[in-house]
Amino acid sequence: MAAQLSPQQLADKHRSTLDQALDAIRTRAYWSPHPEHPKAYGESAAADGLAAFQALRGTRFELDQPGTDGWTGGEISPYGPALDVEYPHADPDVLLPAMRAGAGAWREAGPETRALVCLEILARISARTHEFAHAVMHTSGQAFLMALQAGGPHAQDRGLEAVAYAYQEQTRTPVAADWSKPQGKRGPLELRKTFTAVPRGIALLIGCNTFPTWNGYPGLFASLATGNAVLVKPHPRAVLPLALTVRVAREVLAEAGFDPNLVALAVERPGEGIAKSLAVRPEIKIIDYTGSTAFGDWLETHARQAQVYTEKAGVNTVVIDSTGDYKGMLANLAFSLSLYSGQMCTTPQNLLIPRDGIATDAGDKSYDEVVADLAASVSGLLGDDARANAVLGALVNPDVKARLDVAAGLGDLALASREIAHPDFPDAVVRTPALVKADGARKTWEGAEEPGYLSECFGPVSFAVAVDSTADALDLLRHTVRHRGAMTVGAYTTSPETERAVEDVCLEESAQLSLNLTGGVYVNQTAAFSDFHGSGGNPAANAALCDAAFVANRFRMVEVRRQA
Amino acid sequence: MAAQLSPQQLADKHRSTLDQALDAIRTRAYWSPHPEHPKAYGESAAADGLAAFQALRGTRFELDQPGTDGWTGGEISPYGPALDVEYPHADPDVLLPAMRAGAGAWREAGPETRALVCLEILARISARTHEFAHAVMHTSGQAFLMALQAGGPHAQDRGLEAVAYAYQEQTRTPVAADWSKPQGKRGPLELRKTFTAVPRGIALLIGCNTFPTWNGYPGLFASLATGNAVLVKPHPRAVLPLALTVRVAREVLAEAGFDPNLVALAVERPGEGIAKSLAVRPEIKIIDYTGSTAFGDWLETHARQAQVYTEKAGVNTVVIDSTGDYKGMLANLAFSLSLYSGQMCTTPQNLLIPRDGIATDAGDKSYDEVVADLAASVSGLLGDDARANAVLGALVNPDVKARLDVAAGLGDLALASREIAHPDFPDAVVRTPALVKADGARKTWEGAEEPGYLSECFGPVSFAVAVDSTADALDLLRHTVRHRGAMTVGAYTTSPETERAVEDVCLEESAQLSLNLTGGVYVNQTAAFSDFHGSGGNPAANAALCDAAFVANRFRMVEVRRQA
Repeated sequence: MAAQLSPQQLADKHRSTLDQALDAIRTRAYWSPHPEHPKAYGESAAADGLAAFQALRGTRFELDQPGTDGWTGGEISPYGPALDVEYPHADPDVLLPAMRAGAGAWREAGPETRALVCLEILARISARTHEFAHAVMHTSGQAFLMALQAGGPHAQDRGLEAVAYAYQEQTRTPVAADWSKPQGKRGPLELRKTFTAVPRGIALLIGCNTFPTWNGYPGLFASLATGNAVLVKPHPRAVLPLALTVRVAREVLAEAGFDPNLVALAVERPGEGIAKSLAVRPEIKIIDYTGSTAFGDWLETHARQAQVYTEKAGVNTVVIDSTGDYKGMLANLAFSLSLYSGQMCTTPQNLLIPRDGIATDAGDKSYDEVVADLAASVSGLLGDDARANAVLGALVNPDVKARLDVAAGLGDLALASREIAHPDFPDAVVRTPALVKADGARKTWEGAEEPGYLSECFGPVSFAVAVDSTADALDLLRHTVRHRGAMTVGAYTTSPETERAVEDVCLEESAQLSLNLTGGVYVNQTAAFSDFHGSGGNPAANAALCDAAFVANRFRMVEVRRQA
Repeated sequence: MAAQLSPQQLADKHRSTLDQALDAIRTRAYWSPHPEHPKAYGESAAADGLAAFQALRGTRFELDQPGTDGWTGGEISPYGPALDVEYPHADPDVLLPAMRAGAGAWREAGPETRALVCLEILARISARTHEFAHAVMHTSGQAFLMALQAGGPHAQDRGLEAVAYAYQEQTRTPVAADWSKPQGKRGPLELRKTFTAVPRGIALLIGCNTFPTWNGYPGLFASLATGNAVLVKPHPRAVLPLALTVRVAREVLAEAGFDPNLVALAVERPGEGIAKSLAVRPEIKIIDYTGSTAFGDWLETHARQAQVYTEKAGVNTVVIDSTGDYKGMLANLAFSLSLYSGQMCTTPQNLLIPRDGIATDAGDKSYDEVVADLAASVSGLLGDDARANAVLGALVNPDVKARLDVAAGLGDLALASREIAHPDFPDAVVRTPALVKADGARKTWEGAEEPGYLSECFGPVSFAVAVDSTADALDLLRHTVRHRGAMTVGAYTTSPETERAVEDVCLEESAQLSLNLTGGVYVNQTAAFSDFHGSGGNPAANAALCDAAFVANRFRMVEVRRQA
């Protein structure tokens, strides 16, 4: 029998981590309890993790959930192999009511115990980071090291960050208050008040293909820590990382004396489309979603019974006005365009470059020179196949490849995509990014017809957009953020006036801005506890990871007042 | 020329009040800087306030707003007299763009200056509490003392509370942070990050007839303090209190060096229905609304470009199981039912009383005895016409009177409504509440057809609902809150088990509960800084006044990061 976890044991293990997380979201200095280096997980972690992953393949993933009415699953790794894992298929008419059974005890546990249980879940996931890395790699197509870092510690950080915000929001109102209102000569009016954070109901997490854990953990842990049960509906191509997560969560909940059905898994049969039917169930009061704008908009429109948090598509822009470190800028951009084959919601898509060129520390550079130098920089970064594989990973699904295949038709190619062979996985689809030249004259985007570069082209395709001036670039940036959304904006300039102008656009259109990155920090990467992921204020996403608004409406505060 | 208000002057005047408000929302102990007693406003305040109100009648209410394309207004006091005030009618195509002009400076002012400007607005409103009292009285129908208190200090408290929450939320992220990530033997990655609270855009406040200031101030000040411009669209029958508010806000903004058009008024011509067209304008990013469920639902469904905060209709319930202070309970309930003729969104509508009677300190009482004693208690409270007028106020509009007129047909009347003459206003429609007997057997509410007592009957009509047991009462309470919503729930019981059971229902259905009130605190009254008004977790309202969730999504946090 598993050891039981008492609140005191949980506090001894995790309270100081929670306190450090609370401090980090307040100072926003660097902090993480989850190591990035693969070797930090112990001598045998790499071999154990691989073995654990391999042992999952070709099995039924038992979860002992109520309402299991069959088995389903058909994940095929972007690297080629089929995973051959079968997951329980759930009857929501049985599962959802069962998920409510433990809600009272979970509510009564209070914010601290809930936070500590969440930290125990995260700690156990952290201990299995290598196993999760393989699961993320073989569902998302991320290269192993990225899958380990982004799918492991960085995802765990984002989960912990959500727990910290949830704890903070729930405890800003005291548990009890004595209220005494003077009444002049008469005695005061006196009341004893108690305040309880209550959940909204069942939360639905709709996972994505590319970052199942990183994009999934904030919503999952924010909802769970605020007292809600959470039903996890993974993307059909990326079930395993979230199935493992659900299993760990259920184990910890049970050991801590709570109903394991507070967290459950819903995997769909091919073509079943259960996200749509689950999303409008009356039991579902919260939805977290990462994916296409079309379905995100559908959820926002139709799931009116729920709080809906969406991260959708955007068109990320980099304004290139001038630079004091031309080589550094090129290297930084080349890596940003290449990392995970541009399959990040934060990857720059449009590079706005003045038609007349830019001033740099290496002399003035024409538009054509900048584009050619950037192309050369990307080619250099990815010239070695081993490094290319480590940076690019594999294309996550055939849709991305199809989009890349048509990119050549969108304009002159400054850099054509190249196929890379993977030494271990011959069926992996690995491609270098394409860079397409585009005309960004005002008439191309001010009119009724939208140019191709203003649609999100998710994957390894970027556009070197020639603009008539930096002023035009800022107007195009504003137009893009306002109408297409942006998860990230970058800019390079040596001019304080231009810097201020691009800041103003980002402040006015609510976009997160990275300025003059030329070293080892990239526009497409954000750090939990310090950086906000998205702003929630432009069409790319209606929420930011992670802020108070992301958690404060997942629970309500119920007051009971009595005459004192 | 008006004296200019510097940030330092504002801080000297108001920073300590802001700090006290921040402390109050944290401790939730009693606190208010706004006196309730009419005499607290100075010797001449009463006369000055009345004179100021009278001077407004029969005038054009000049505001010097852009886009004024005519004049409109036709408020008639529920006490009889026409106010004869004309307000500017705005062309939104001119006014809305003008409201955005000052947004940059208002954003740059930062959370503290915005909060202090809001406190100056509230302080000037507070100084004119008597004038506002007449304006509220003659638009809402509240009796003078209630109009002064609820429309004055209590409304100002709620506005200040919203400012405190807005300030706290915006300042929980630092203005800047230095981020340094160790990289082993290599030097650390270092970034300088700045964080700016940015507004969503223009907020629309859609005012209500009964509590134009009390229900309007939280949204108005929450939006303004978070950097948004605010367009105030009053209820056509209750323009004056909000027009005065807008005028004061514009004066203070201008004196503090900001664009007065950050706050503007939109009054509609008869039948124009501008709330609908304004609500879906792309410039409108936040909407606060108090009123009917039908229009609240319409806003939530159609104003998809905006954050929508609604307080709609509910059916408030009091469970009467037993009491240790029968007389106190009757007196407390009688006052709750009578205050402002039951025209509060918090007034109890359904009193659930066991058919077999209840145990009390005055002996067992049958259902009929409880109902008769309550009726007698109401009659006693309102037996004297002067006191009746002071408690009841006037019916706010003909709809309420029409609803009262049909109440007699809804069941046996335990207490008929009675007409009261007003000594000063012969045309005032003053009515005592009606108490209707209703059968609350399970079959009346478990079936498809809904009994009359489960629809909100806004105004002086309550139902003494006979239930088969206290257990049935709790089930009916749960059914009512879940399906019809509730701003308040009350309960009387001497049984710890029943107390716990009713608490569980309220925690599970997200309703605010008052237990065993027998003294001078009433279920329909809440105190800012301590009590939450509504929960935001049941159909009566999608937000609570006031919590972090009410303000945290009115702004977004934009980060700019630079290589250090």
